[in-house]
Amino acid sequence: MKLASLKGGRDGRLAVVSHDLAWCVEAQPIVATLQAALDDWAAYEPQLRALAVSLETGGAPRRRFHEHDAASPLPRAYQWADGSAYVNHVQLVRRARGAETPASFWTEPLMYQGGSDGFLGPRDPIPLADPAWGCDLEGEVAVIVGDVPQGADRQTALAAVRLVMLANDVSLRNLIPEELGKGFGFFQSKPASAFSPVAVTPDELEGWRDGKLHGALEMELNGTELGCADAGVDMTFDFGTLIAHAARTRALSAGTIVGSGTVSNRGDDGGPGRPVAEGGVGYSCLAELRTVETLAYGAPRTGFLKAGDRVRIEMRDGRRHSIFGAIEQDVADS
Amino acid sequence: MKLASLKGGRDGRLAVVSHDLAWCVEAQPIVATLQAALDDWAAYEPQLRALAVSLETGGAPRRRFHEHDAASPLPRAYQWADGSAYVNHVQLVRRARGAETPASFWTEPLMYQGGSDGFLGPRDPIPLADPAWGCDLEGEVAVIVGDVPQGADRQTALAAVRLVMLANDVSLRNLIPEELGKGFGFFQSKPASAFSPVAVTPDELEGWRDGKLHGALEMELNGTELGCADAGVDMTFDFGTLIAHAARTRALSAGTIVGSGTVSNRGDDGGPGRPVAEGGVGYSCLAELRTVETLAYGAPRTGFLKAGDRVRIEMRDGRRHSIFGAIEQDVADS
Repeated sequence: MKLASLKGGRDGRLAVVSHDLAWCVEAQPIVATLQAALDDWAAYEPQLRALAVSLETGGAPRRRFHEHDAASPLPRAYQWADGSAYVNHVQLVRRARGAETPASFWTEPLMYQGGSDGFLGPRDPIPLADPAWGCDLEGEVAVIVGDVPQGADRQTALAAVRLVMLANDVSLRNLIPEELGKGFGFFQSKPASAFSPVAVTPDELEGWRDGKLHGALEMELNGTELGCADAGVDMTFDFGTLIAHAARTRALSAGTIVGSGTVSNRGDDGGPGRPVAEGGVGYSCLAELRTVETLAYGAPRTGFLKAGDRVRIEMRDGRRHSIFGAIEQDVADS
Repeated sequence: MKLASLKGGRDGRLAVVSHDLAWCVEAQPIVATLQAALDDWAAYEPQLRALAVSLETGGAPRRRFHEHDAASPLPRAYQWADGSAYVNHVQLVRRARGAETPASFWTEPLMYQGGSDGFLGPRDPIPLADPAWGCDLEGEVAVIVGDVPQGADRQTALAAVRLVMLANDVSLRNLIPEELGKGFGFFQSKPASAFSPVAVTPDELEGWRDGKLHGALEMELNGTELGCADAGVDMTFDFGTLIAHAARTRALSAGTIVGSGTVSNRGDDGGPGRPVAEGGVGYSCLAELRTVETLAYGAPRTGFLKAGDRVRIEMRDGRRHSIFGAIEQDVADS
């Protein structure tokens, strides 16, 4: 089942979307918003699935689905807990600022509490008040969970995954060192994130296994490929482990979004991997590319995002059909 | 105007509470939940205020208000941004772990992104799975804001304050050093917070001026006074400054809660202040008391919270009437 939230109001209007993303039907007669559906998933899921079947078979009064009509599946959420499961990414970004990666990072997930009071829509501009902040995109996989009890183990946590989607975790790189230096984590350096137009139940994803989403995460910057790392590769901590980490000391409420962190694959030699232009799978953020450029040339050659830049994040299935729709955002002065 | 959310469902049932906290009337005919009221405050505030007048004058079908029937005013919220505005507290807690306080802490607010997907009710037990985590209470003042645009200045930010309340920002002290050492801020070390039974509009608070709430924050542990620090004293950053800090790089959505951090007054000599038993105003958390004990005796004498302990947080007006009702929580095995 594929779900979207059409723009409208603070929480959007829940819609069921066809497998090929061509059609949709509003879920209003059943439940008005995705958060409301998640709040009582056992009651609503069967009804929404029945509507999805009806949509595929032509029984529902369908209309065209346009990705630019979609808000993020949860336009606002009660929690956005973003992991950093691709330790290759962590190593690269830390190397850029001359920091070692502690050995514990390979055995204990890193996770930060993100702002969730308002997400950008998948086609909304990224507002940037000051280009000196060093705006970057971060391509990720994210899941929405149901209620997770405190102390849940990995299996219980994994069973709570309701929906999977893609994320652009916008980051202000030049604000990060000072902010992390204060010791309280990210705040100003993480403005609003965006999620893919469509969220998909795990059973509909051929690449979903072992708590990971396998498949190339296609990253583009101004129409040029930035990366195509496989989200199922080099993910040190699967979503079950990430969710259990988040729930170690407190329960998680339905509608909590848990992120994978920036997707990142090591190179064949175990090193940072090569840019797309040099035959590698590239990167899911500019920070990694800039680090690799610095290692190669002594300084980064790629600038951070500026007004007018366009970023695109998408994943396709075995037949090259878009699974979640595309996050496609222009950077705009704000 | 005083508002509460009576327990029921994930978001409670909004009620208007009388000034003396004796009576309430459900707001359902106007708006069902506090979040819904905040989402369109301009429309609902006048109607809720009219209901409040009707309640005081006996015109509304009132019933007794019992604090133990109340959830936190927002049982779950889209954002909980907790500052650390009493730098005296920061100094004391850092001193406990041998860390200096950077000079910038006096000029730039510290703030962390807290979990907001589920808050404890003001009389709910604090679930504690492992006493070795070092459970502590933290008495704070918190505000709920309306929409705040990105880049708002202090005055704009202050004008967005809709409601004021008290908070118990439960902390797991023994998990903090390792978690902050990883660089991504608090996550497991900050389980669910609790807020006072009642949230109050600023106009009804005689102690609300200059973006601060003046008045003694009464802290009790097992019936013994732990502290009575004045929340209007030694608050280095007022709420306008804290909110503007939170909104520097992104807008804040209506219903965002911004916290003051642990209320803390310096001693007459400018030092950490004395315990209540020695004639001082004491402390709003155990960590400060333990630091002072360590300075005096070489080791802390007060343990962290354990099952069976009871904490109480309250503030009274000039006539000794409770303003927000009391947070009163027992610690319980979970």
